[in-house]
Amino acid sequence: MKFLIFAFFGGVHLLSLCSGKAIYKNGISKRTFEEIKEEIASYGDVAKAIINLAVYGKAQNRSYERLALLVDTVGPRLSGSKNLEKAIQIMYQNLQQDELENVHLEPGRIPHWERGEESAVMLEPRIHKIAILGLGSSIGTPPEGITAEVLVVTSFDELQRRASEARGKIVVYNQPYINYSRTVQYRTQGAVEAAKVGALASLIRSVASFSIYSPHTGIQEYQDGVPRIPTACITVEDAEMMSRMASRGIRIVIQLKMGAKTYPDTDSFNTVAEITGSKYPEQVVLVSGHLDSWDVGQGAMDDGGGAFISWEALSLIKDLGLRPKRTLRLVLWTAEEQGGVGAFQYYQLHKVNISNYSLVMESDTGTFLPTGLQFTGSEKARAVMEEVMSLLQPLNVTQVLSHGEGTDINFWIKAGVPGASLLDDLYKYFFFHHSHGDTMTVMDPKQMNVAAAVWAVVSYVVADMEEMLPRS
Amino acid sequence: MKFLIFAFFGGVHLLSLCSGKAIYKNGISKRTFEEIKEEIASYGDVAKAIINLAVYGKAQNRSYERLALLVDTVGPRLSGSKNLEKAIQIMYQNLQQDELENVHLEPGRIPHWERGEESAVMLEPRIHKIAILGLGSSIGTPPEGITAEVLVVTSFDELQRRASEARGKIVVYNQPYINYSRTVQYRTQGAVEAAKVGALASLIRSVASFSIYSPHTGIQEYQDGVPRIPTACITVEDAEMMSRMASRGIRIVIQLKMGAKTYPDTDSFNTVAEITGSKYPEQVVLVSGHLDSWDVGQGAMDDGGGAFISWEALSLIKDLGLRPKRTLRLVLWTAEEQGGVGAFQYYQLHKVNISNYSLVMESDTGTFLPTGLQFTGSEKARAVMEEVMSLLQPLNVTQVLSHGEGTDINFWIKAGVPGASLLDDLYKYFFFHHSHGDTMTVMDPKQMNVAAAVWAVVSYVVADMEEMLPRS
Repeated sequence: MKFLIFAFFGGVHLLSLCSGKAIYKNGISKRTFEEIKEEIASYGDVAKAIINLAVYGKAQNRSYERLALLVDTVGPRLSGSKNLEKAIQIMYQNLQQDELENVHLEPGRIPHWERGEESAVMLEPRIHKIAILGLGSSIGTPPEGITAEVLVVTSFDELQRRASEARGKIVVYNQPYINYSRTVQYRTQGAVEAAKVGALASLIRSVASFSIYSPHTGIQEYQDGVPRIPTACITVEDAEMMSRMASRGIRIVIQLKMGAKTYPDTDSFNTVAEITGSKYPEQVVLVSGHLDSWDVGQGAMDDGGGAFISWEALSLIKDLGLRPKRTLRLVLWTAEEQGGVGAFQYYQLHKVNISNYSLVMESDTGTFLPTGLQFTGSEKARAVMEEVMSLLQPLNVTQVLSHGEGTDINFWIKAGVPGASLLDDLYKYFFFHHSHGDTMTVMDPKQMNVAAAVWAVVSYVVADMEEMLPRS
Repeated sequence: MKFLIFAFFGGVHLLSLCSGKAIYKNGISKRTFEEIKEEIASYGDVAKAIINLAVYGKAQNRSYERLALLVDTVGPRLSGSKNLEKAIQIMYQNLQQDELENVHLEPGRIPHWERGEESAVMLEPRIHKIAILGLGSSIGTPPEGITAEVLVVTSFDELQRRASEARGKIVVYNQPYINYSRTVQYRTQGAVEAAKVGALASLIRSVASFSIYSPHTGIQEYQDGVPRIPTACITVEDAEMMSRMASRGIRIVIQLKMGAKTYPDTDSFNTVAEITGSKYPEQVVLVSGHLDSWDVGQGAMDDGGGAFISWEALSLIKDLGLRPKRTLRLVLWTAEEQGGVGAFQYYQLHKVNISNYSLVMESDTGTFLPTGLQFTGSEKARAVMEEVMSLLQPLNVTQVLSHGEGTDINFWIKAGVPGASLLDDLYKYFFFHHSHGDTMTVMDPKQMNVAAAVWAVVSYVVADMEEMLPRS
């Protein structure tokens, strides 16, 4: 409700701000906001055609079917793995067969970490096999494992208070789940904080909003000058159980074995395809998702869905015989999960042309039922985006919230380029995120249809409007 | 809504049926329904005292804490296992320490099956480790495993139509989840049906309403004259993936290894405690849950919760210094999961006194938020139970639905004894059922408080009323 009110007054506010005056100048023209609104409104039929094709027409379920075929064939696609390499080659062929333009691979170097064999067993107070997933970049244990008593804490604060108890132990974090961005610090920093107080290893409650005894992996970060200790996630269930045991004064001993190893960086590629602009081909609207995933499940949700609705956006536009004035560029990033590695290399290579980037878009928080966009940009650009999103009234997907940032597009956004992320129903996202449960079973073809339609309408209209999105 | 209407007219109906006349005779007295209503209404203060103690008073969270301590200490409690034996011994001590009466163990013989080491790997079209849980009573594979092509079917009908394709293969069932009672036939009968058409093994989609790559185990049944083949459950995710692959014409090969083995039956016990009746000690109201579980997770939900609210019912009544006219008997069944084995032996031993059993109660479908009871008995007994449940108005837990049957009390119900099961919110029950996810994390102390209050009020009032529940 808050957002509906915002959108309503947003329009009024803009009119009074801009009434009758040019609101920006981009070396092309000087137009009133009313003229821009009219221009955007003129895309109503195009938007309807895209929606009809994607949601009700012959393209329906296409992005789902394409994704299922890829992830069933290849499986998960960890940075540095043969699977990722294979997926990139398949996607290169797919995009060529789809007759997109300028299909090519842009090389880069990416991390290569493998978890190897891993296991954890609670030896005291009773034998219990603990499900774990080693965290990306973790070192392994010696082959005989690390066998040590456990210190259970529920926060970094508690770890500090009990620092004297941690030496020589395995620290188990049973932090509550607040939300992803707050709670994920335990996954990324848990090993470093435990090592600082002398722990031998750390086991971290999975960062998940719901669990059926499901461990969740993800990246973790060592710090220079702090000993590197092995670190893995355990399930919510085991973290809670050990916390209860510890609160009863029970001594817990775990044997942890991890074969994790970091290998030299490997070659990889960002995968690129375009519909070249008819009038300003050097100017770009970029749509994207990442092709890599963690090494469990199928990487269907994170981020197969985002990658494939991005591809679908170009397919839909091509199928309708549309060609925007600006170039519409699809990028399927590599090694996002290692910290936007492919995207950073892309940015380094292309930032020289930053003034030509009208909008960077990424879908990387699921392709469940969309409700709108998250957007970062100037107030003026936001006003334009709100008009563009009004074209999606037929799908009732019109919200424009803040925080358009995503790992792979942040480099551009920080440098002033407007950026947008798909806003969708996140309710179950962190049930599956980075777990064995991230498979096609999570995906809904109808929801992907709607997400693809939103993605296509936004990218096409912004790429085809007479002027680029205004910057601050 | 249907049930609300039923309850409303139920009252009217009853009054017209019974107006002014005795509705039953049990060798004790001849009373009008109005008199019985009055008698039940007189328990209003007792019901409130039980509710206050269980939900708001010093007993709150006790059943949860007691259960956590047991299942954290012992772990899961499979029929025939050392864990179950240990749990029974602990419960025997617990009930004695709780100063309940006539605490004793009733011996019997129960099945002893162990899953041993087990694994499944998809070898074609790509290497993929498949999560499995062998099914109770399944035979194992040879040590080298069974490596065979897969036939995926979505129903027994499809298996029949494609019977000629099944010989020498591993049958994978990808049956949709309709509801537990309909879908569970694939788990119990899947191996037999596959063996009849010459399959070497069967892998069955877990009978679950939601999955995070979670396999679910349970009992399966061989048939005399049909070859015994190894059988296990796989996840919803893998069943769906193989179904998609098969629909694309892809050849799938799986290597299945199962170390499952059935050992000779072992000694075990139903665990019994009582509050002896003050006036009719030979007459019984039986409250129960089962102490055994599957060998994964903690057996906290199935059926730790049911067993522990049953214990809690007696504790609450004892704490309040109440002693009903009839004996209130707690039974914690053994080997329910193997088909009510302990309960059947109990029935065989005690059925000679069947005329003294007023009501048999079991909680074995979760102790989530209760909404009432499921009840099987005569119309007259139902009318009494509706009055009893009206005492739970303060908790808004007043529904009396049909189908009071539960595995362990069915023997009595079939022989004419009124039976009741706890009716609670089943929404998530089959997320966790028979999986690694059946742990204390599932349990909610507040919901258990309410469930225990319901259990205590019903069992106490029925045990204390002047007359036994009328039979047909």
